Amino acid sequence: MSKKFKIVTIGGGSSYTPELVEGIIKRYDKIPVTELWLVDVEAGREKLETVGALAKRMVKKAGVPIEIHLSYDRREALKDADFVTIQLRVGQLAARALDERIPLKHGVIGQETNGAGGLFKALRTIPVILDICKEVEELCPDAWIINFTNPAGMVTEAALRYSNIKRFIGLCNIPIGMEMGIAKLLNVDYSRVRIDFAGLNHMVFGLEVYLDGVSVKEKVLEMIMDPANASFVKNIDAEEWAPEFLKGINVIPCSYHHYYYKTSEMLERALKDFESNETRAEVVQKIEESLFEKYRDETLDIKPPELEKRGGAYYSDAACRLISSIYNDTRDIQPLNTVNKGAISGLPYDGAVEVSCVITKDGPVPLTIGELPVPVRGLIQTIKSFEQTAIEAAVEGSREKAILALTINPLVANDKLAVAIVDEMLEAHKEYLPRFFN
Amino acid sequence: MSKKFKIVTIGGGSSYTPELVEGIIKRYDKIPVTELWLVDVEAGREKLETVGALAKRMVKKAGVPIEIHLSYDRREALKDADFVTIQLRVGQLAARALDERIPLKHGVIGQETNGAGGLFKALRTIPVILDICKEVEELCPDAWIINFTNPAGMVTEAALRYSNIKRFIGLCNIPIGMEMGIAKLLNVDYSRVRIDFAGLNHMVFGLEVYLDGVSVKEKVLEMIMDPANASFVKNIDAEEWAPEFLKGINVIPCSYHHYYYKTSEMLERALKDFESNETRAEVVQKIEESLFEKYRDETLDIKPPELEKRGGAYYSDAACRLISSIYNDTRDIQPLNTVNKGAISGLPYDGAVEVSCVITKDGPVPLTIGELPVPVRGLIQTIKSFEQTAIEAAVEGSREKAILALTINPLVANDKLAVAIVDEMLEAHKEYLPRFFN
Amino acid sequence: MSKKFKIVTIGGGSSYTPELVEGIIKRYDKIPVTELWLVDVEAGREKLETVGALAKRMVKKAGVPIEIHLSYDRREALKDADFVTIQLRVGQLAARALDERIPLKHGVIGQETNGAGGLFKALRTIPVILDICKEVEELCPDAWIINFTNPAGMVTEAALRYSNIKRFIGLCNIPIGMEMGIAKLLNVDYSRVRIDFAGLNHMVFGLEVYLDGVSVKEKVLEMIMDPANASFVKNIDAEEWAPEFLKGINVIPCSYHHYYYKTSEMLERALKDFESNETRAEVVQKIEESLFEKYRDETLDIKPPELEKRGGAYYSDAACRLISSIYNDTRDIQPLNTVNKGAISGLPYDGAVEVSCVITKDGPVPLTIGELPVPVRGLIQTIKSFEQTAIEAAVEGSREKAILALTINPLVANDKLAVAIVDEMLEAHKEYLPRFFN
Amino acid sequence: MSKKFKIVTIGGGSSYTPELVEGIIKRYDKIPVTELWLVDVEAGREKLETVGALAKRMVKKAGVPIEIHLSYDRREALKDADFVTIQLRVGQLAARALDERIPLKHGVIGQETNGAGGLFKALRTIPVILDICKEVEELCPDAWIINFTNPAGMVTEAALRYSNIKRFIGLCNIPIGMEMGIAKLLNVDYSRVRIDFAGLNHMVFGLEVYLDGVSVKEKVLEMIMDPANASFVKNIDAEEWAPEFLKGINVIPCSYHHYYYKTSEMLERALKDFESNETRAEVVQKIEESLFEKYRDETLDIKPPELEKRGGAYYSDAACRLISSIYNDTRDIQPLNTVNKGAISGLPYDGAVEVSCVITKDGPVPLTIGELPVPVRGLIQTIKSFEQTAIEAAVEGSREKAILALTINPLVANDKLAVAIVDEMLEAHKEYLPRFFN
Repeated sequence: MSKKFKIVTIGGGSSYTPELVEGIIKRYDKIPVTELWLVDVEAGREKLETVGALAKRMVKKAGVPIEIHLSYDRREALKDADFVTIQLRVGQLAARALDERIPLKHGVIGQETNGAGGLFKALRTIPVILDICKEVEELCPDAWIINFTNPAGMVTEAALRYSNIKRFIGLCNIPIGMEMGIAKLLNVDYSRVRIDFAGLNHMVFGLEVYLDGVSVKEKVLEMIMDPANASFVKNIDAEEWAPEFLKGINVIPCSYHHYYYKTSEMLERALKDFESNETRAEVVQKIEESLFEKYRDETLDIKPPELEKRGGAYYSDAACRLISSIYNDTRDIQPLNTVNKGAISGLPYDGAVEVSCVITKDGPVPLTIGELPVPVRGLIQTIKSFEQTAIEAAVEGSREKAILALTINPLVANDKLAVAIVDEMLEAHKEYLPRFFN
Repeated sequence: MSKKFKIVTIGGGSSYTPELVEGIIKRYDKIPVTELWLVDVEAGREKLETVGALAKRMVKKAGVPIEIHLSYDRREALKDADFVTIQLRVGQLAARALDERIPLKHGVIGQETNGAGGLFKALRTIPVILDICKEVEELCPDAWIINFTNPAGMVTEAALRYSNIKRFIGLCNIPIGMEMGIAKLLNVDYSRVRIDFAGLNHMVFGLEVYLDGVSVKEKVLEMIMDPANASFVKNIDAEEWAPEFLKGINVIPCSYHHYYYKTSEMLERALKDFESNETRAEVVQKIEESLFEKYRDETLDIKPPELEKRGGAYYSDAACRLISSIYNDTRDIQPLNTVNKGAISGLPYDGAVEVSCVITKDGPVPLTIGELPVPVRGLIQTIKSFEQTAIEAAVEGSREKAILALTINPLVANDKLAVAIVDEMLEAHKEYLPRFFN
Repeated sequence: MSKKFKIVTIGGGSSYTPELVEGIIKRYDKIPVTELWLVDVEAGREKLETVGALAKRMVKKAGVPIEIHLSYDRREALKDADFVTIQLRVGQLAARALDERIPLKHGVIGQETNGAGGLFKALRTIPVILDICKEVEELCPDAWIINFTNPAGMVTEAALRYSNIKRFIGLCNIPIGMEMGIAKLLNVDYSRVRIDFAGLNHMVFGLEVYLDGVSVKEKVLEMIMDPANASFVKNIDAEEWAPEFLKGINVIPCSYHHYYYKTSEMLERALKDFESNETRAEVVQKIEESLFEKYRDETLDIKPPELEKRGGAYYSDAACRLISSIYNDTRDIQPLNTVNKGAISGLPYDGAVEVSCVITKDGPVPLTIGELPVPVRGLIQTIKSFEQTAIEAAVEGSREKAILALTINPLVANDKLAVAIVDEMLEAHKEYLPRFFN
Repeated sequence: MSKKFKIVTIGGGSSYTPELVEGIIKRYDKIPVTELWLVDVEAGREKLETVGALAKRMVKKAGVPIEIHLSYDRREALKDADFVTIQLRVGQLAARALDERIPLKHGVIGQETNGAGGLFKALRTIPVILDICKEVEELCPDAWIINFTNPAGMVTEAALRYSNIKRFIGLCNIPIGMEMGIAKLLNVDYSRVRIDFAGLNHMVFGLEVYLDGVSVKEKVLEMIMDPANASFVKNIDAEEWAPEFLKGINVIPCSYHHYYYKTSEMLERALKDFESNETRAEVVQKIEESLFEKYRDETLDIKPPELEKRGGAYYSDAACRLISSIYNDTRDIQPLNTVNKGAISGLPYDGAVEVSCVITKDGPVPLTIGELPVPVRGLIQTIKSFEQTAIEAAVEGSREKAILALTINPLVANDKLAVAIVDEMLEAHKEYLPRFFN
């Protein structure tokens, strides 16, 4: 086991890192990591030190020979990496709060992936990701990049289209959460449930659900019609679905579909949070503070269970599972964001999709999905149009394209409102948008 | 000229008929019609008698040997027809008023093509159209059907998918109005302007605009940015566009795009009309009454100029132009609703699209459009999803699919609201929805 | 293990059956078969009795509780089957001899899949397969059909297009043989090699070759350039490839590609066999006789090793592997003939392709292949055109379409020659071609 | 008429030039050309002087104010051109003779478009065309290039893929000849016949034939079954078709299809010509000599009628027709080689196809063809694979790709033969293949 196996985590000071460390430790027999590099920006020094110290205690307690390195020099860290995970947040939670609050001021949902918030997160994040891709190309060209920075779909597509990196995978915990949630509804072990996923990030549908390989979709749809089961995935407090709608659409929606098929109710909730200063960013801010409080406890040498309540739970564990599958060529099936190549008919061949894939040492290979069901084609294509326009805006620093992206987004759908929101948000995030202000 | 040339107009009692008669008369050298049959239902007897009498006076004044036949027996009329035009309205204007007013009660735009109103107009109309198709198949299998009954796109697709009739063309005056409106802006004769149209009915974009064959798109976009030119097509009182949006989208929107890119403003206007009892159906009702008042004047022997103010102006003239182009194999270019066959990449091969076509004696052949611009793909695909789901609802009489269609429609976008609207409208239109109530 | 698990083998009197029985026995822990029905036509009674007796001795020796049933009544056998395997030969080996010899008389290769022989095998076989599909639909609608009757690609496509059966899988030993052959060249265990297969039956390419998940395609291509390794798959005595061609095409051809890229040499060999009465059918005839000689030995209670020398070796074992993967939802990867659904871009969506699939309890799901490499697109599409035309000829009993199929086939490529061959073969096979002679 | 209108003809010393001059003169009212530049290489000086003098006499006799310029400096000539026609022949007729004779020595047809001859003509020509494209980009970026240099399909695709020129149109006289030939069969004026063309250059099918807009395909197929009408297009002495084949394929083949559907007969003819030194190049050589003999006659001031017997007749006239249609935005339908953009489903979106187009001032717009008939898909795709591989060989100077192109070509279909032919031809054409010999 003396062969080098180096993982680099960009945004290593994240509160999620202990889950990642735990994920690596518990799979040590399958992924014999020799070095874990946690990298962050100077501004995050305190957090990185805290998380790094906890990581060292965890490794020590587990008795595995993994070196933990902390670094503020991305290039130094990337050198000869085997896997690079990315979980950064340009502008920290303060920027997310603006992403959520400014749109709400204008009466529309912010949302950090497919709404106005997601647009601006993309504008801030994509240039940084493209920089990382260039560095990876130079310093560790054979490494796999596993990104769970949101908006994960757009970030993946931007990397595929605007960098020379092909080994780039976007990872989201929503589809994994759906499998877990449905397993719980069915009262069976998670490993027995398999869903055929197809769509885009935060815009994914379960086209089929299998228990031990046999379709249970009808049964699951029935269960989800029960208001008590509406939020079978934890991360969004969902409204119940109209049973007629579920019967008609005949696929499993993801939690984010509440934004599109129940916009008014979701907006009402968000406005309530807005007024009580309890938007997601603000809630997360508090959770983070309490987590770091715990992390600083020098007697803590395991991942604290509270972390599982954080919305992004299972992300880091999913990343470890993915690393193990690639490293070991396991050929198991996982839902990922990768290049379409015709897996989903009607979506761009070269663009990113979220889809069930077989994981090989050579990367994910999408299962053939074929045509999407008629009723879901439009919304998925709309979000893909939004994504592509937003990515172009990010790469070109184009205000007009940002406005266009927001106008065609179903959560805004108004040209003048788009102008107002974009202009206010460009100003608010000026510091992190150099391509727009040169 | 003694060769039989028979045109049958279903819904012959329509107030538009005089335009059709005028269109035939003025093209008599190109389309030597021998018989024009105006057919209607018994309930429309008074209107048909009035319009028929006017038609006879017009023909007499013009001195052309066209026999005008009035009939309440569709089968008798269809026998050996060469062209069949359809301009019917199941449930008359009273039904249209419900289509508009019920959705507005629930806070959403009704609209007679792509909104809740359009859904119900489709549910009432499609079965009747499919009946006509069956009769045409039997009684005049070589005839061309030219339909301008709304929702024209859905009606065309329903006929293509659920009948054996291939010679079915959907006609809309919106793209023609766009060419005319832009010619007026450019202060040139209409014949010098050509637009590359692509999309769906009432969801069509002008991808390019040519003056004498040379692109003037940039110039036209600049002109449309001027608020004074926002409603360059007459049929909708439009709001002005944000110039950034027009620059970004870089194609010419149609007037109906205001509903999707300015939903809130359009809803506000509609609610105002709703409160003052001036929804479109109500306005049209008054226009119709005043038109029929005129038609009854036995000294009138031409199309009265007031007819041109009616929203559907040029429809009937466009139908005559199309009949002439088919009859004479003129190979000129006209925008029509016909089967896609790959003309517009990404839209269903077998479905109906609205697209610039070359008109031959063998029917319309779409010009190859290729990929739609990224920003418009989503909305067009969304309306296509809506159309296909609505057509299935109409054919199957499925309440669930009607609810699904409305939920995925961007003007509603809410499952529970869709349930409420559909249930109220099903009840209101019960009489005309036999497939739902058996 | 008392749960019924019934396999029905149509063409049970085949010399391959002992391999099938062995395959079931050795996987008994994974596929606890309770009944194996061997069905054949009356004309094959002697063979079926012989094979059936051997099967019973094998089962007895292995000590597994599998009932062996022999039947001449297909309907009785099919009742409530779980899996149906098809390995029939309409007209026996005598018909195959005609398939090979008549075309050779006219100076072209016969070949039992993609040549003139394959056309006539399709014409004889497809109607019988469609009959079986109808019976399965009635008697055991949930059963999976696994067909290894040639031409396996056309038979699969015919079933998918002209029957109501969806659970129909075509199986060929060529791609499996390629994996085995390459493993042998690399001197590694077969399980460590994986090939991305794409194409059609007997027209499949290995787009990539992996050893433990890492591409070794370049290395394998180098090895195949060595004349000693040209026939790395056993079933065809192959000529060596021009190294420039292999470098240029940059994918792994299958053994049948020799017919298309070395037509003249292959024809020369075939003509030599023709003259010495050693065409494949004649050789197989002798092997068969000697095998049945052995099978009749009442002390024999295992599969005799000589069977492995027969061209179709591993077919039956592959069938057992596939049954096990479906039954146990193993999600492993196997090359199969199934519906494309967009897995291979550019080939018909609804047609059959031979492609690497993940095997689930719900059937095979193709891995997404994307665009075929430019140089192989043409030939694959040509054979697909041939297949589709031949299937239509079979279903309609159309002499013209049979002639057309042969004219567009690259091994004939001549309209008048096609007429001559088709007419002679129609006459020769008259007895088995009822759709052509009514 | 004082506005500059400049046409540049590259390869101006061609024997076809008088037809071009005549075409311009007779359309002078529609295309008021002010300057015609005939450009050639120094080696062709004598021919250019001869042709140029004749052109001047023709213009003078016609009394039209067109300046004729002769030039050996391509850049000087291209400056500010409005249209550029290309009719060059790298290596003159001597090279063509090699293209035909060397393959025949190896027992395969040479052929100057889709066979081994066409491959080498492409290898010699494409780099020169790409140079011209660069010069056009610099010196007359708004000019339209109309190319009739063979292989016209490959040349067009090479320009579209490997230059920045979009205004590049490939023109062939085969489809025009088909319309003329069928008009003659039907004994009607050519203008009344219209064919829906689809395919590739010299691989085009007439999917439908209309007389006055009404399909007469069945009738035309019947007529072509008559051996007397087999060569209804003049340029190839064709064998008769098997009627069953024509009935089966149900589209109109072009004359070049004899090479693919009657390879052996065509080869036999070619071998006879080879032995009697009457290959096409040799025949053309003699015709050329006799034409130039005539051109030198200083009393000649019209196009001599003998020119119409030359295989390429109507090419130049077709070019004039096309120039007129573009210049005047006539929107008439002509068969051309242009970018597919989805017009023909299943062929590459960005590649060149030969297809019926509407001609506008903005260039040709293909009519939507949709799916090709199943039986012709394979051969068309095969030739497209050949074309794409050959173009890559030409651009990269790759011997391996040249060998691959020839191996996948149905007229060769043998890897070792491909090696032998390519190596002999590379050597023979060395002088004109700088990319292969550096």
